[in-house]
Amino acid sequence: MSNPKKALRQALAQQDAYLQEYQEYLRIPSVSTLSEHKADVERCAEWVAGQLRGMGLTEVKIMPTAGHPVIFGEWLQSADKPTVLMYGHYDVQPVDPLNEWHSGPFDPTIRGDYIFARGASDMKGQGHAFLKALEALLQNGELGINVKVFFEGEEEIGSPSLPAFIAEHKELLKSDVVLNCDSGIMGIDQPSMVYGLRGLAYFELWVHTASQDLHSGTFGGSIYNPAQALADLIAGMHDKKGRITLPGFYDKVRKLSSKERRQLAKLPYDETTWLKITGAPGLHGEKGFSTVERVGARPSLEVNGLLSGFTGEGSKTVLPAKAMAKISTRLIPDQDPDEVEQQMRQYLAANAPSTIRWELKALAGSKGALTPTDTPWMKAAGKALKQTFDVKPVFELGGGSVPIVIMLKELLGVDSVMLGFGMRDDNIHGPNERQHLPTYFKGIETYIRFLANLD
Amino acid sequence: MSNPKKALRQALAQQDAYLQEYQEYLRIPSVSTLSEHKADVERCAEWVAGQLRGMGLTEVKIMPTAGHPVIFGEWLQSADKPTVLMYGHYDVQPVDPLNEWHSGPFDPTIRGDYIFARGASDMKGQGHAFLKALEALLQNGELGINVKVFFEGEEEIGSPSLPAFIAEHKELLKSDVVLNCDSGIMGIDQPSMVYGLRGLAYFELWVHTASQDLHSGTFGGSIYNPAQALADLIAGMHDKKGRITLPGFYDKVRKLSSKERRQLAKLPYDETTWLKITGAPGLHGEKGFSTVERVGARPSLEVNGLLSGFTGEGSKTVLPAKAMAKISTRLIPDQDPDEVEQQMRQYLAANAPSTIRWELKALAGSKGALTPTDTPWMKAAGKALKQTFDVKPVFELGGGSVPIVIMLKELLGVDSVMLGFGMRDDNIHGPNERQHLPTYFKGIETYIRFLANLD
Repeated sequence: MSNPKKALRQALAQQDAYLQEYQEYLRIPSVSTLSEHKADVERCAEWVAGQLRGMGLTEVKIMPTAGHPVIFGEWLQSADKPTVLMYGHYDVQPVDPLNEWHSGPFDPTIRGDYIFARGASDMKGQGHAFLKALEALLQNGELGINVKVFFEGEEEIGSPSLPAFIAEHKELLKSDVVLNCDSGIMGIDQPSMVYGLRGLAYFELWVHTASQDLHSGTFGGSIYNPAQALADLIAGMHDKKGRITLPGFYDKVRKLSSKERRQLAKLPYDETTWLKITGAPGLHGEKGFSTVERVGARPSLEVNGLLSGFTGEGSKTVLPAKAMAKISTRLIPDQDPDEVEQQMRQYLAANAPSTIRWELKALAGSKGALTPTDTPWMKAAGKALKQTFDVKPVFELGGGSVPIVIMLKELLGVDSVMLGFGMRDDNIHGPNERQHLPTYFKGIETYIRFLANLD
Repeated sequence: MSNPKKALRQALAQQDAYLQEYQEYLRIPSVSTLSEHKADVERCAEWVAGQLRGMGLTEVKIMPTAGHPVIFGEWLQSADKPTVLMYGHYDVQPVDPLNEWHSGPFDPTIRGDYIFARGASDMKGQGHAFLKALEALLQNGELGINVKVFFEGEEEIGSPSLPAFIAEHKELLKSDVVLNCDSGIMGIDQPSMVYGLRGLAYFELWVHTASQDLHSGTFGGSIYNPAQALADLIAGMHDKKGRITLPGFYDKVRKLSSKERRQLAKLPYDETTWLKITGAPGLHGEKGFSTVERVGARPSLEVNGLLSGFTGEGSKTVLPAKAMAKISTRLIPDQDPDEVEQQMRQYLAANAPSTIRWELKALAGSKGALTPTDTPWMKAAGKALKQTFDVKPVFELGGGSVPIVIMLKELLGVDSVMLGFGMRDDNIHGPNERQHLPTYFKGIETYIRFLANLD
């Protein structure tokens, strides 16, 4: 363990400059799922590569994949010390509904303690905080371990090109531990570390009946309305207890032990706060489980989008020809997204009548993951959080999916430490995404201390 | 009964000129439900008024209403003869989905025997055919009865301003019978007359849970997804037998007599043809009723539109804040749209849990209607069809709603004759709306003969 005094002092002194640069990063609309933003995604990759070159990393390169490029750089000076592979992503989610943003999603705006922009929390803020921590250590000669930096541009679309990329570059990515910055803490004054992540299986389901839109008076009541059929199929995907009805869906769901349930029950979660963050009039979910269990330790199935027929102003008496739903399931170890796709197909085959046609596309899939909490890496991270926040961090289960964690474990055999500084009420993936700025600055300090603690 | 020889001869000779003018009418995008088309709707009203002035009608005026204007004109020369009030509408439905049109919806295009454009069949074609019939009779001095012409601009949004307008202008609209041209026939070689129309109650239903879109991983499984809640509510609106579950919905539905069922069973409907017209893989509807009964003599409930969350390209792991459905019911005498709204509210109050918020807007409503088939007016229409098509017309039930029919019966005490020349496969309200041109020309002849038969 080393004492990165000068780096920490520099991090405090440079806050204004960091904030300027963070905003520059946020201004690039690197939306990975929309082909119209392809050039922006490339520009963003260049921007990150420029950062790595600027701080003197070696082997800095923008590496093509089947989709958006990967950026790599390294600092390997201490053969006898551990190597940390930092993982981040420079892509962001789409911005819709655009009209609900109070300021432009790519026009970063500071209001109070927060900066508002798409990607502010997920995860340009976290990625940038790490880059500044690494820079401060390097500029002050205080980095005593080896670091590899690895940014992808497809996290928000399920990292489709990454398995092939990692398999092809195992030597390049070889490391002792992964630092995954795509994470968060429970609250401003409550640091926490995520040790479990849910997997994902994301589908687009189309139902077709008529060959084109028809008059609902002339034809209504004589053929199966596809929006109705879609609603019927979606309604049937949960039973009365809030359990998912896809055949075999729970077969591989790892059961929570009594000990785990006791530990989760101790987390400083408060259902009133949960209602306040979401704005929902009530909690709703699988019977027999608490909210913290429902979002972290149990699988879920959500409708992410619906579209059919006439959705404009006023009334149009149309019997739509087709209806579409985006539906995703969050998975728990040891569920497999490919198996879940088969279960979804079985469900549809069993429940869709012959009076409709249906089509299912699997858009993204990843497994869930659990990481051990007693490794030296987790301890170094926990200590860095305690040193910075002056509060003992707690362990929690993350409801989201970070496919890279399971991928790196399977392909490189390396565990990940999830260490990031977003928060649940940052509106990530929604309008008015934000990042708490004092926590972003504490994040820089924490990353400096984490790397020093491994020395 | 007079013999309108010269008018019929003129109608044949002028077909090219009529077609040019019909296309001019179709080029005006008079979409009544979209405020951006307000000026187009006004321009269309001017166009129709110009037609009435051009053929020498008196009292031609564009009359304001709370919404879009009404056009009126008359020819009252024979005090001892009956007065026919012709009803039409000059507004059209929206055009979405625009990308499914093979030619521009307001760029009328002739392919084969058909002309394609929004409004070609519903009902600029029918309205124009009547105007040309009236013109031919007037220009040849062969109109022996009295005619009033009355076009509204709000039929496609449920005629909200019409009850007040009619109540205010009872004397102006006073007549012996209404000729409603917003109708159709069963097939190119099968003329038919509609004697029953379904009513309408059209709703927009919103479900809200979170105050804004959330990350589906972080929050999925802990609150009620509004798209899921909407699907659950929609799914519950029908039971396993295809019956509508709104409380009391069937209480006032007029039962079909055995005689009516036998008559309906004789109609030259063919389920194979029905499947071909719709393109649906199968028929679907209320158990215990035939297709002709389902679309004409039984109420139905249709989803006209669905919208929630992310509907663009690819995947976005969002838990939407809200979801919307447009839902309409087709009503049978003696159902009342206001009562159906209350039934819908009761259903929602009983079935929506406290973990969501819902909001219901009633967008349009009208009652259903049945007209007697043995009046002199119906006989004159039947005879005109037989003279023109050389085939005996059949009586049928129309599944659609023409609120004006019930309104005129209630407010003026006058029955309507439904006589128009659209067909079920004209794609009205959908993309590629069309009108069979030979039938449009036969329509002009039929209207000439109908007016002459009343003399």
